[in-house]
Order: sequence, then structure tokens, then C-alpha cells
Amino acid sequence: MTRYGQQFGPDFTFLGVDPVDLEDTEALAAADVVIVGAPWDGGTSHRPGTRFGPQAIRGTDYLGHDGSRPHLALRVDAMQDLRVVDAGDVEMPPGEQERSRQALEDAVYAVASQGTVPLVLGGDHSITLPDATAVARHLGFGRVSMIHFDAHADTGHIEFGSLYGHGQPMRRLIESGALRGDRFLQVGLRGYWPGPETLDWMASQSMRSFEMTEIVARGLGACLDEAFEIALDDCDAVFLSVDIDVCDPGHAPGTGTPEPGGLSSRELLDAVRRICLELPVAGIDVVEVSPPYDHADITAALANRVCLEALSGIAARKVGLDHDPAGPLLEGR
Amino acid sequence: MTRYGQQFGPDFTFLGVDPVDLEDTEALAAADVVIVGAPWDGGTSHRPGTRFGPQAIRGTDYLGHDGSRPHLALRVDAMQDLRVVDAGDVEMPPGEQERSRQALEDAVYAVASQGTVPLVLGGDHSITLPDATAVARHLGFGRVSMIHFDAHADTGHIEFGSLYGHGQPMRRLIESGALRGDRFLQVGLRGYWPGPETLDWMASQSMRSFEMTEIVARGLGACLDEAFEIALDDCDAVFLSVDIDVCDPGHAPGTGTPEPGGLSSRELLDAVRRICLELPVAGIDVVEVSPPYDHADITAALANRVCLEALSGIAARKVGLDHDPAGPLLEGR
Amino acid sequence: MTRYGQQFGPDFTFLGVDPVDLEDTEALAAADVVIVGAPWDGGTSHRPGTRFGPQAIRGTDYLGHDGSRPHLALRVDAMQDLRVVDAGDVEMPPGEQERSRQALEDAVYAVASQGTVPLVLGGDHSITLPDATAVARHLGFGRVSMIHFDAHADTGHIEFGSLYGHGQPMRRLIESGALRGDRFLQVGLRGYWPGPETLDWMASQSMRSFEMTEIVARGLGACLDEAFEIALDDCDAVFLSVDIDVCDPGHAPGTGTPEPGGLSSRELLDAVRRICLELPVAGIDVVEVSPPYDHADITAALANRVCLEALSGIAARKVGLDHDPAGPLLEGR
Amino acid sequence: MTRYGQQFGPDFTFLGVDPVDLEDTEALAAADVVIVGAPWDGGTSHRPGTRFGPQAIRGTDYLGHDGSRPHLALRVDAMQDLRVVDAGDVEMPPGEQERSRQALEDAVYAVASQGTVPLVLGGDHSITLPDATAVARHLGFGRVSMIHFDAHADTGHIEFGSLYGHGQPMRRLIESGALRGDRFLQVGLRGYWPGPETLDWMASQSMRSFEMTEIVARGLGACLDEAFEIALDDCDAVFLSVDIDVCDPGHAPGTGTPEPGGLSSRELLDAVRRICLELPVAGIDVVEVSPPYDHADITAALANRVCLEALSGIAARKVGLDHDPAGPLLEGR
Amino acid sequence: MTRYGQQFGPDFTFLGVDPVDLEDTEALAAADVVIVGAPWDGGTSHRPGTRFGPQAIRGTDYLGHDGSRPHLALRVDAMQDLRVVDAGDVEMPPGEQERSRQALEDAVYAVASQGTVPLVLGGDHSITLPDATAVARHLGFGRVSMIHFDAHADTGHIEFGSLYGHGQPMRRLIESGALRGDRFLQVGLRGYWPGPETLDWMASQSMRSFEMTEIVARGLGACLDEAFEIALDDCDAVFLSVDIDVCDPGHAPGTGTPEPGGLSSRELLDAVRRICLELPVAGIDVVEVSPPYDHADITAALANRVCLEALSGIAARKVGLDHDPAGPLLEGR
Amino acid sequence: MTRYGQQFGPDFTFLGVDPVDLEDTEALAAADVVIVGAPWDGGTSHRPGTRFGPQAIRGTDYLGHDGSRPHLALRVDAMQDLRVVDAGDVEMPPGEQERSRQALEDAVYAVASQGTVPLVLGGDHSITLPDATAVARHLGFGRVSMIHFDAHADTGHIEFGSLYGHGQPMRRLIESGALRGDRFLQVGLRGYWPGPETLDWMASQSMRSFEMTEIVARGLGACLDEAFEIALDDCDAVFLSVDIDVCDPGHAPGTGTPEPGGLSSRELLDAVRRICLELPVAGIDVVEVSPPYDHADITAALANRVCLEALSGIAARKVGLDHDPAGPLLEGR
Repeated sequence: MTRYGQQFGPDFTFLGVDPVDLEDTEALAAADVVIVGAPWDGGTSHRPGTRFGPQAIRGTDYLGHDGSRPHLALRVDAMQDLRVVDAGDVEMPPGEQERSRQALEDAVYAVASQGTVPLVLGGDHSITLPDATAVARHLGFGRVSMIHFDAHADTGHIEFGSLYGHGQPMRRLIESGALRGDRFLQVGLRGYWPGPETLDWMASQSMRSFEMTEIVARGLGACLDEAFEIALDDCDAVFLSVDIDVCDPGHAPGTGTPEPGGLSSRELLDAVRRICLELPVAGIDVVEVSPPYDHADITAALANRVCLEALSGIAARKVGLDHDPAGPLLEGR
Repeated sequence: MTRYGQQFGPDFTFLGVDPVDLEDTEALAAADVVIVGAPWDGGTSHRPGTRFGPQAIRGTDYLGHDGSRPHLALRVDAMQDLRVVDAGDVEMPPGEQERSRQALEDAVYAVASQGTVPLVLGGDHSITLPDATAVARHLGFGRVSMIHFDAHADTGHIEFGSLYGHGQPMRRLIESGALRGDRFLQVGLRGYWPGPETLDWMASQSMRSFEMTEIVARGLGACLDEAFEIALDDCDAVFLSVDIDVCDPGHAPGTGTPEPGGLSSRELLDAVRRICLELPVAGIDVVEVSPPYDHADITAALANRVCLEALSGIAARKVGLDHDPAGPLLEGR
Repeated sequence: MTRYGQQFGPDFTFLGVDPVDLEDTEALAAADVVIVGAPWDGGTSHRPGTRFGPQAIRGTDYLGHDGSRPHLALRVDAMQDLRVVDAGDVEMPPGEQERSRQALEDAVYAVASQGTVPLVLGGDHSITLPDATAVARHLGFGRVSMIHFDAHADTGHIEFGSLYGHGQPMRRLIESGALRGDRFLQVGLRGYWPGPETLDWMASQSMRSFEMTEIVARGLGACLDEAFEIALDDCDAVFLSVDIDVCDPGHAPGTGTPEPGGLSSRELLDAVRRICLELPVAGIDVVEVSPPYDHADITAALANRVCLEALSGIAARKVGLDHDPAGPLLEGR
Repeated sequence: MTRYGQQFGPDFTFLGVDPVDLEDTEALAAADVVIVGAPWDGGTSHRPGTRFGPQAIRGTDYLGHDGSRPHLALRVDAMQDLRVVDAGDVEMPPGEQERSRQALEDAVYAVASQGTVPLVLGGDHSITLPDATAVARHLGFGRVSMIHFDAHADTGHIEFGSLYGHGQPMRRLIESGALRGDRFLQVGLRGYWPGPETLDWMASQSMRSFEMTEIVARGLGACLDEAFEIALDDCDAVFLSVDIDVCDPGHAPGTGTPEPGGLSSRELLDAVRRICLELPVAGIDVVEVSPPYDHADITAALANRVCLEALSGIAARKVGLDHDPAGPLLEGR
Repeated sequence: MTRYGQQFGPDFTFLGVDPVDLEDTEALAAADVVIVGAPWDGGTSHRPGTRFGPQAIRGTDYLGHDGSRPHLALRVDAMQDLRVVDAGDVEMPPGEQERSRQALEDAVYAVASQGTVPLVLGGDHSITLPDATAVARHLGFGRVSMIHFDAHADTGHIEFGSLYGHGQPMRRLIESGALRGDRFLQVGLRGYWPGPETLDWMASQSMRSFEMTEIVARGLGACLDEAFEIALDDCDAVFLSVDIDVCDPGHAPGTGTPEPGGLSSRELLDAVRRICLELPVAGIDVVEVSPPYDHADITAALANRVCLEALSGIAARKVGLDHDPAGPLLEGR
Repeated sequence: MTRYGQQFGPDFTFLGVDPVDLEDTEALAAADVVIVGAPWDGGTSHRPGTRFGPQAIRGTDYLGHDGSRPHLALRVDAMQDLRVVDAGDVEMPPGEQERSRQALEDAVYAVASQGTVPLVLGGDHSITLPDATAVARHLGFGRVSMIHFDAHADTGHIEFGSLYGHGQPMRRLIESGALRGDRFLQVGLRGYWPGPETLDWMASQSMRSFEMTEIVARGLGACLDEAFEIALDDCDAVFLSVDIDVCDPGHAPGTGTPEPGGLSSRELLDAVRRICLELPVAGIDVVEVSPPYDHADITAALANRVCLEALSGIAARKVGLDHDPAGPLLEGR
């Protein structure tokens, strides 16, 4: 598994970080976070285009692509304070879901098995099955809790006659035992899917799903407090899966199955930062960015910032930062 | 008035519900809600395109067009728990406002007179004159209150030398006696129109208009509480008219006269659901969706969801649901 | 400096107000506010296009271009209650930053020196250096405080080997003494720029920068309260500089360096109105609107409304209005 | 009928020419060509938006809006060699076709009756009924031949129950006697409309319609030769009506009813120039430019150039130019 | 294989023709042409989106969706003179290429085996493998020649480790013996793919490929003459495969792998009509229309017209029309 | 002048060729062609955005970015048969035209002085002044002829008070003596600029400008024949400057000053290939690609292909290819 570059378009790394080869276990072990691209849109049930997600997330930033990003509020530079490298894309031939899924799982496991955090850039949400499985293979089945931002539960059984579309990975993960249903936290659900049978199955697995009505009524902070408590109960680490469609289509139009009424981008960025600052995150994926439906790159920019907030939170956690969100930016005032 | 299909583009129904013929009074009477398309943009004072609104609202949904939409939070399936059918579009020849207005009023009356709720898909806001008149003809002039979401008061007198543009329907409805000014609730007004004379006329009619500054200062919930009390005072039913431009242009760019500083799509969806759950709604229209100015269908998707939230609220009201917005989605957690 | 019209495209004025000639000092003195276009995008570090900002801000409004805009909530008509005129654009040849900067400073000084408020339509943010310098030349170096809405601090030292890009005007203004660092209020900062050295410089100047995390934690209202107190402490007037990218890209996609996680357009409009109503504003600029990246003109419309809210606030302040944001729009209810 | 400005958006004239008032008969008589805007899309059977056509055609040009356009090949400056003025738009309230049609006919007649050439900027093609009628009223019914560029014959009888949509003006013109069927030359027809009955009616009127298959087989030049001969046979003048959809959608996407397989923009420009250079043109309209469907203003730019080629041809005819298309641009080589 | 409707979006048929069920062999046999949708983009090597091709090609037409399209030049109405019905889409789950390919082959064979012409709407070009195989299964391996419009030869061997992408179907068809290499006519090739090895293989199969340089030098008509002769030499029928990217990106931007320098849309339409008029066409597919990359639906409209020209040619051939392209549209002139 | 990477966005090379450092004279001398990016839009008189041209031209290709491009018609692989390397961008700070111009001239001279062909990716057309000057400095002032594809003559004197915008480079080149006016060949001019004075100056310099009317009347081939003869008369080499706006806006919408009625993309590609195959080309630039105004990357793709046709022509000339455009692609047929 030598470095593949990007499957589509020119080859470059996430904001200019160093490339890494997935066969170079030493380099993987020396890193804090390894970027992995999963350019797969063969699992989407509607608008495709997420195959161009890794490219867009890596490259959409008006700042210099120089491997440095000092975080204003946290005062850490995730890309300097951490060792972040980019393994390029996994080859995922459109139309070949089984082969592609296995290749991705192998790549993510190559990273996770070195004790390094994989940050996987999707691709559609079906990639979370291999992503989280690979992390659980290393840390132990049932030892990793999941925090899952999404408009959709993604717990479907069979769609278009297949077990492996982007609406089903969460069910597969629980069925296989990789993740526990009662440590599965979902944030931002809304709309008209899934139906009663699936919801019953979710309840039977003791999943905890925060639908938007509850989030509006109780506040996102209170919901996250509750989620954090569950996530840390008899689990060793957290997998964070961010479907960009958790945000309102006004903030993230470039996605495949946009559901109106979601979080603002500010809410998502604050939540992701807090999770990575307060919890032991062992794996991350950012999915469902579909550039053909984006406008002026605003969805790609948001996903890029989700990655940077996550990295900055991890860096701040590493250095033991005690951050007061209400404090002033500059000292002395 | 046999079923016409869609005036523009291919013929299909709202998310795949059964078609109905407006001459089939038995079928109309058997339904809970009848969809009616009003593909009219001859009343707009600026950007046209709402003629394609009915088509866009009917068809914009990434889920299967199968006549089923289980509501996550309410746990009703409006399209199964209610009998929802689609009468297609009314023929409204561009450039022929008088003939078009009459045809629409007849169609809506055909539905309302059977005791069935018409859900009219605009079209520009001038269609609310025939829509609400038809409902009032059935329930009695002055017996129907109005809840009107909009950036604009739509109470102009004469525009471009005409009485019947999209900025004037509310005045015509009050002048004719169809609706009472003192049971006219407006939510979301803002900007720089209309001027003092019109505002004086509105005050003289005892209209209650919640401008965005008041909504921000007091909270949307408190404003709706006040509005609900007025709406139910000596009236038998409510007409709900939703101009999509009540939302901020960031959430609803695809419209003719976008006014910055509006509601979020989440706020609108929550409000519409609450109205239909708590009040006896007898007619609805959803207007001013202009697909040529939309991006990635986000405005059309929002309008589709406004319809579904309304239908779900009606369904929940029908089954006597007691909904706690702060409760968890899944039982047992 | 006779009136130049618009540098790009057809010639028209802001919403149809009267044109004015910059050499006609009598007319400048008789005005309350003079619009000046600064069609300059030679300072941007990324996406260009703000050269078309003045044209877009002047002309984007679905209402008649008739020089009247009655404000719904404040019940003033800024364009009638004030004398607002438009001096057209300053000629700013792309590629000639020094000549362009000087020409703009001269034009703004021509207005400010008559005791009239210049409202400058950018252009990229590098124009604030000449804009605010010109106002300070008239009112006294160090006598004007700054309220600066932006995602970015714009306090960089050297970029691309130049002192004068759009990321540096605030540093130049403080260095020259035109503005005091300890009366420099920044609202809406976020993201990953600038780095520690620049932040240290900012702190050393006693700047007060409200980053978004603080704004979310404390509320925008509380932050503005604090800012207002500083702004009025031993200063005679306020310069208001609004970079449209202070808003979230979902609300303002048409800009050069969009940073996710910003204010909503509602928050910005409310803040601008409040500033102009409560503080003695002596100069304004609205910058970084880039029409090529806009969609359905929503960013241009927002910037147009920022201008109108500012003008309406100034008008309300002039007539001594006592405004209660929580009050009803119409009397008698 | 004092000058109205533009019905939509800011007020400016065609490339900066002087404005004229339609009541100022002396000024109309002194002009060679008067621009008239017809912002009407109430006649379109599909995509609207041509109401913004006049604004787009007037203003879309990257050159200075200075009332000068020296033609490279012809070496005339139409806007200097001719007296061209702009009467602004006729008020044409959307939804009011009868009133609008009459107002436009009156305006065009005001120009034509002074012996001046009206150049009408549409608007949809239904405006050609009043445009050509007005010219014929002045020069005599049956004395004006028509050269009509279009993908569609526009000879429909009744559409959507109306006689006056954009698919019918040519029939109405022949029925009324304003124009003779046997002096009606159509260029560029193609596609699947109208059906046999209408084609039979057209044949019965002895119309001469050049379908694209014939144009490809014989060459556009040969077809124009034939058309010119008919046009000048017992007629005193020519009306030129250019529907931008005569061009291929690749060259003119911004239109309401795009039909693939049309002329290139080069072919249209060359033909229009030749017509105005070789024939006594007494009236012109340029229609069906729909900015909401345009991209990067290419359709608006094309329509602007159609106007300039027509004006340049008229100017060259006026000065008696003898132009050799195969000659070099610069003398001496 | 009961009728499936459309896999994505609402259900409607090609321009409103009657639906048909693939299990209803009697109905298939009674038809002249059966439309089949192949909403598959799992084979594309670059920009996806062709899954929405069938929906776009069926529905993009500004004329009434009424099952009638009288051809102006040919004076036939393909949809009346032929029996055209629509079988809906084949279910082709994204990510499952093998299952999808088989399902499509079965569906096309169901049509072809009744002696009826399948007109398959893609989808990416990988669908031509099942399409043409199914037709050859009925008429005999080696008995059907191929006329293939494309910028690309599509004769690759292995791509992304797979035999079945959109760049390889033509090789698979020849390898399997379904089609003969020496009866394989390619029109419109250009660019920088494939390389020498593949070209050598193509030459070894005696394929006849008309690259654009040759087409420009000799004329498209002459090339088609030569192609027709080969096509009819010891073959019984022709399969026509039209990749929309044979046209220049200016005429067909909405596609996955646009190669500049192609045919104009006029050239393609004329060629398709001529083929279906002069040759015994037994199967057709129209592929690579990708709506997310289209603008103002011009690519979808072109593909719709390719279908209509093909159908009109078949109808004209059926009625024995003798068509003179240089003749006038209307009799008597 | 160490390699700078790309000034905007991520760093990658033209289709994946090797990078080169401009200080590495040995490497420059060893190359046949060196790519240089000139991301400058400070010279444009209207729509900016060409600063993103180099990035777009380097990266827009659906094929693998693998440094190989076998030319179908010529059967050479320019990127293998030639040594092509990429020096990255020259830093050209927006707003600093003098410094930027000098930096670019130095960079191009660094290449040309090694006897290597510079291929400069613009940027607006003002870059041709330093580009061609640098080549002439090496080969001798007056020893290099120019073939210049453009809608505009670019021979203006002073624009916006400056000598150095994108409408003036050709005048500066002749004035300085770098190029001879009587060896200056312009192809594709059209429209309404420049005026008589400038045309007189051009004639006085004995320039040979082929306006589109002449090209249509005589054929592009005949015009090129004439141009080639002049180009080779007492000159040692040719500079080829391609402004993408020489093509019709339908084929190249993504540009700053689109002039309708231009060449098709096929015509441009054929002409560029022929020039590089038949003439001793010593320098090339491809300019005026403005990605913000592009759609579906069709303009960027065209410019990428202009580069590849030029490179392929140079490669074919190097190997002494004798190419017959009318011959078949594959041998044996």
C-alpha cells in the first residue's frame, strides 16, 4: 500500500502537510494524526459527487498551504503542535463497493494499529463502516463509543437490495459488535427517515439519538453534556463521525441528501472542538461533502474547518490546555 | 375542471400521492388534504420564476416518492395517517391575471367546500387572495383568522397601476371582508416597505404584525403564543400562508424579493409544525419559491419540508398527540 | 475631482439618490452622508471581484430605485430624513495600489472635511487605510475610535512582500497614529490567522478583539455594550468598518476569504443599526463584497441593507428617536 | 408618456447614450434610432425572466459606457455617426397583457411616426405584435416586410386559452394585415413545433421559412440572398425581429425555450450586420434574453452585440459604405 | 421485472408516452421503440452524475409533455407514427456494478427479443456493454454493426483494477464476440487517450475510427458515407451509441469527461437523424449526460433532441420518406 | 528565485510533470519546455479572476495527472517525447504591477536564456509584455515574430491612466523594439475596440490583423498561410500568444472581456497545433482564463488543451513528423 496520491485530479496534501506512505509503519507510529482520503460515492442513495470530497477538503483554504494553522481562540497550532501527515487517497474504484470497503478498512487499520488517530476524508457515509471497524479492531470491539453528527440515523437495513449504502453503516457497526448500541450517540437527526421498524431496532439497541426538536428545546450544550457522560462510561475512546449534512442546507448546500432545519456551522465547529478537547478521540471521519453541489466552496471550507477544529482540540488536549470560551482573545483587556 | 397535471414540465404528484380530479367531489370529500398547484408568477414585482414552484415543491426530496413520510419527532406518517391527494395544477396563463385568479379560487373552493384542507403550492403571493377567499366562502367571511409568515406585509394598495400584484393580497382580503384585520397575524416582517400610509391603514385595521426586531427581542415562541390567542378569539379556523422569504436569503435564496435578516429554516419548520398541531388549520399556501434563483434545490427542499411539517402537525392533531419537544427520540433512554 | 460615475459598468447612484461632484464643496457640506465607491480588489490575498462591489451594493434592491426607504422598525426614512448623495467611484486602476490609495484618501477627505459622513462602498478591506485616515485627518489623529466587524484581524505586517494588502490596514492605521490601538474594537474574529507574533503586537497595542467563541459564550449584546463603553472613552467619534465576511459564508458567500462560523445576517444588521443609533458615527465603509462568488445576489443585498441600517440609525439618532426593540410594529396592538 | 427609466433595477441607458422622453416628438424626430425597453415576460410559455432583458442588454459590455462604439470591420461608429437615444422602458405590469401590449404599441408608434427607427429590447417575443404593428401603422399595412430570426415560427393560434403568448405574434400580425404573409421571411426554424395544421396555415399565407436543415444544406448566405429578394419585392421597408434562441443554446443559454441545433453567434452577427447594411430597416426588436438562465452574461453580451451590429449596419448604409468582408482590417497590408 | 418507475426522483415517462411493464411481452412486441432508463454512474472515471441522466432526458423539454412531437423538417410525428412506450428505469444500485450490469442486460434483452428497438437512456458509457450485448443476443453475435459517437474510444483494458468502467465497454463487446471489430465505426474521437498499446489493439481488430482532425479535413458527411458502407457490409442491423461528449463542451458542458474540440450540436443532430433514416437501427443508447454539471439544462435538452431525431428518423424510414435536406419547409415557395 | 509553488491554493505541477527550480540553470537547459505560472489579474480592465488561471490550467484534466499525454492524431506523447518541467508560479502581488512585471520577465528570461521554450500560464494579457520581452532579450530584439490570437488588438496607449494594463502590451512591445510591428500577426479580432487613432497607429507599424469578418470570408486556413509566410520572413523564431477570448464566449465563458462571434474551440486547437508543428516557436503564453466566470471548467479545459496541442506540435516537429490531417486514425483502414 504505497502512497497513491489523490484518485481524482492533481496530487497534493491536506494544507501542505508532509505525505506519508501507508507501508511506512514507523512514520505512521511517529505521527499524531494521519489524513486518509476515501473518494467514494458509490454508496449514496441520491446526489453523488463525494468522490471529490477529499480533494476539496484538503485544498479549500484561502490561507497559505504551508502546514501551519494557529488557532485564534485556543492558541495552539495543530499542524505544528501535532505531527499531522497525509497518506493520500485509498483507491476506491466506483462501482466496486466490496473491494473498496476492504481497501479502506485496511488503510485505516494501518494507521490505528500504530496508535495514531486516522482522520478520514469522505466520500459518502458508507465509509464509516470500514473506518470505525478498523479503529475497533485495534482498541477492541465494544471499547469505542461513537459520536455521530448527522441529519440521518444511517441505521437502515437494506436499501436498493444492498447492505452497504450510505444509509446503513451504523447498523452494520452495531450488528458486527464493533460498536455498542448503548454507546452510540447521534446528534442532529431530523426529517422523515427512518420509519418505525428501524426506530424500534435503534431503541432495542439502546442508542441515544438527539433529534433537532430536543436540541432546540434543551440546548445543544446540555445534549452534549449528556452525550459525553454516556460516551465515557466503560469505553476507552471515542470515534467522531461528522456528516456535513448535520448542518442546515443554507450552511452546507454541497451534499447529497440535504435536510432543512439543521445546525448552524458555528454550532458544529464549537461542538467538534469541544469533543476533541474533552474526550479521548481515537478516530474521525468527515463525510458527505459533494463539491458539484457546492457554491463558492462554502461547504468544502466548512469541512476543512471541521478538520482543523478537531485537530486543534486534539492539540489543546495534548498540551493540557484549560480553555475558557468566555475569555477575551487578547491578554490585558 | 378535470385534473390538469402540471402546467409546466412532466406530470407527477406531491411525493407520489394519488392524483385526484377536482370534479370528483366524492374523492375530495374523502380526503383530509388536497394539494393544488398554482404556477403563477404574473404578480411578482421583481424576480419571476415561481411558476416552477409547484413542480419543485412536489418533486424535491431525496427520499423515495412513495407517499410515505414518517415524522421522526412526532412519530406520525402524515401521508399514511391522513388521506392526502394531489389535484395537479390550475391552468394559470401567464399574462392573464383575472382569468387565472378566478380559476384558482374556483379550484380551492371545490376543495374547501367539501370540508377538506387545501394545501396550495405557489406561485407568487398574489395567489393568497383567491386561496383565502375560497376558504372564507366556505367557512364564512370573517370566521377565519390568518397567520402569515413573510418578510413583507403585502398590504399595498396599487402597484404598477394594478390592484392584484403579490404585494397586495392581504389588503384585498381585508377590504372584501373575507378576513378580519384584527385576526390577521403577521410574522417575520422587516426591511423598508411599506411606507407610513400603508402602515397607518394596517394599524387602523388592528392588524398584529411581528417585525423581526420584536421577534429577536421577545423570542419567536412568545410572539407565537400571543398570535395563537388572537387567532382563536371568535374565529373558527386558521389559514396559514407561508412566504418562503420569511426565511433569511441564506436559507432561502430561491425567491423573488429576498430581504436579509430573516428567520432560520429551523425556526420556520418548528413554527409551522406547532401551528398545525395546536390550531384548527383550514387552508394553507406555500408561496414565492423561485427555482431559477435557487441553488442545489435548498429553497425547494425547505418548502417541501414546510408542507410536510404542516401535514405532520395536522396528522398529529388528528390523532390527539401530546408532544413534548424536549423528550428523547427513542424510548428507554 | 469631478464626478467619475462608476468605474465598471453603467452609471447609476445608490438606490437613485442625487449624484454629487467631489469638487462641489458646498454640496458636500449640505449633505449628511456622501456615498463613495472604491472599486478596488488589488489588495485581496485570494478571490478577487470586489471591484464590482460598489456597483452591486448600489443597485441590488428589489424595491424601486427612488431614493426613499422607510424603515419598518424605526419609522424613519433615512433617504428622506437625511440628505444622502452619491459621488460615484474613485478611479482606482487595478495594479496601481499607491496611486489608487491616495486618490481614495483624497476623495474621502473631501467629504469628511465638510463635516459630512462618508459611506464608502468597497472594494477589498485595504481601502480602510485611506478611509479612516481621511476621517482622522479631519477629526484629529487619535480622536476617532474604530468598530470593526470582520472574521479577520487585518493586522498583518507584510504580505506578499507588500505593506498594503487587505490583511494589513488596521496595523497601518495604528502605526501612523491615525487611530489608537486601545480604541480599536474588533467583532467577529475567528479561524487560524494571524499567528502569535501578530496577536502579541495587537495585545501590546491594547486592542479589544471579540472572537466568536467569546461572542457565543457571552452574547453579542454584552460584547457590544463593552465595546461601546470603550469607544466613547476619550474619543469624539466612531468609524464603522464592516467586512461582510464577518457573517457566516452561508449568509455571505460572495466574498474573497470566507471563514465558516460567523454571525448571522440578522445579528449584523441589528448590531449596525444599534451602533449608528447610539454612537456618533463619523465614517463608514462596507467592504469585501465579491459579486462573482455571490449567488442570487444575497451577499450584495445584505451589504445594501447594512448601508440602509446604518443610514436609518443615523437618521433616527438625528431625530432623537427612542426605540424599544421589543415593542409592536403597529400602534394600538 | 414621460420617460419612465427602467421598470426593474437602477436607471441607466443603452451604453450611456442620452435619454429621451417619448413625449418629446422633436427629439424623437431628430434621432436616427430610439431604444425602447419592453420588460415583459408575461407571454412566455416556459422559463420566464425576459423582464430583465432590457436591463441586461443595455448594460452588458466590458467597454466604457460612453456612447461610442467604433466598429472594427466597418470603420463606422454607430453611436456617433447616428443619433441614438434611449426612451427607457415602457411600464408593462406583469399579469396585465392587454394594457401592456397597448402601452408598448403606443410607445413604438411615437418613435416610428417621427420617421425614426425604434430598436425595442425585449422581453419575450409576444412584444413583436405591438412593435411591428406600430411600424406598419406609420408606413402602411402591408408595406413592411419581416425578417424573423428564430428557432420557432411563432405562428400558433391559441395557447393556454389565449391569443397573445410569445408563440403567436406572427400569426396575429398577418391576420390583422399589418404584415403580408408572402413577405414574411423566417430564418433558423427547427425542432418539433408547430404541427401540421399550423404549417398548412403558414403555407397558405405563402410564408417563406428557412429551416435549419435547408440552411445547412444550402448555406446561410444563399438563403439570405433569396430572402432579401423577397423582402424588397413591393415593400418599402423591413422589420427585423431577432429571437436570441435562433442561436444554439451553447451560444445563448439564457433564454426561455432553448432549441438545440441553432446558428452560431458569429453567423447571427454577420447576418444582422448584412441585413442592416443592405436593406432599408425601419424597425428592430431583440427578444427572449432571460438573464436568470444566462451564464457569465454571454447571452446578454450577444444580444448587446446584435444591437451594435444592427446599428453599425444602419450607420454604414447611411454613409454609403462599400464593404468588402474579405479585405484586411488595416490598410497597407 | 415489473415497471420500476424512476430510481431517483418522481416518476414520469419520456415526454409523457405510455408506461410499459417489462414483463408484458405482448406490449413490448406491439411497440416500435421502448425507452429504458439506466441510471448508473458507477462506471465513470471522473465526474459522476449520470444517474440523473434518464430523469433529465425524459423531462427536459419546454413543449407540452403530451406524447406528440411533429418533426418540422421530416414532417413525421415520431411519437404518433411509431408506438413508443417507456419501461422506466432498471434498478442499478450505486456501488454494485455486476448486479446492475446484469439487470440492464436482461431488461434490454426483454425488449430486443420482441423485435422492438430499445432506446436506453444512460447513465455512463459502461452501460453500452449490456445494451449492445442484449441486442446481439437476439440478432446474433457478429450480425450487428456499431456506430459510436464519442470523444473517446472506450476501448481500454483495465482501469482502477476493473474490467467494467465507462472507458472499456467497446473492448469487452469485441472480445466477447457480440460485435465485430471490423464493423465498429467510431466518430468524433480526439484528445490524448488511449495510448499506443490500445490503439494497436484497435487496429488489430480492424476498427474504423474517425478522429476529429480527419472529420475536419474531409467533412463529416464524407466520413459518414464511408461509415455507412462498412456498417451495412454483411451485417443485419446497426446499434447506435451516442456519448454526448462527442459534442464540444460549449454545446454539452453537462458531462463527466469533457474533451474540447468536438462536434457542434447541429452536426450531431443531423448525423443521428440521417443514420436512423438510412440504416436499419436495432438499438440505441444515449449516454454521459451529467445534470449536476449542466447549465440551464442545455445538455439535457440536446440529449432529448438526440432521442427525438433518432425516433423521427426511424419513423421516416418506416413510412418510406424521401427527404431532401435542401428543400423548403413550406410548400409553394 | 527558488521554486515558489503556486501563489494561490495547493501546490501541484502541470499534469504532474516534474518541478524545476528557476535557479537550477542546468535543469532549465536540459528541458525542452518549462511551464511558468503568472497568477496576475492586476491588469484587467473588467472581470478579474485570471490569478487563478495557472492553477486551473495545470489541474483541469479528467485523465490521470501522470505526466503522459499521447496525442491521438499526431501519435506523439509530448510529455514523454519532450522534457517538460514546471517552475511553479512567479510571485506577483496583486496591486504591485511594476514589481510583478519585472519578476515575471526575470523568470521567463531565466528559461529562454537557456535555449528552452517558456510556456507561461496567465494571468491577464498584460503578462505578454514581460513574456515576449524576455524571449526577445535572448534571441535579439526584432528577431522574433508574434502570432497573437485574440478578440482584441491590445494595442491601446493609456488606460485608466496607466501604460501597463491588459489592453496595451502589444503596443509596448513594438515601441520598445522587442518585436517588429511588421512581423506582428493578429488572428480573431472583432468588436468595437480600439478606435481610429489606435488603428492608424497599428497600420503605421505595418501590423497584419485578421479580423473575424476576413477570416469567415477567406477561411482560417488561408489566413494562417499568409501569416506563416510573414512570420518566417527575416525572423528566427515565433512567439505564440493565445488569449482564450479569441474563442466565442459559448466555448470560453470563463474570461474577463468576452466578445461574441469568435472562433470555435476546434478551430483554435487545430491552429495552435499547426503553428507549433510548422513554425520554430520559441515562447508561448496562454492567457485570460478566469475561473470564477467559468462553468463546469470548460474554459480551463480548453486552455489546458491549447497547451497540450502546442506541446504536441513541438514534439512532432522535433521528431520530424509528416502529418496528414485527412488520414485515418488507425492503420489498415
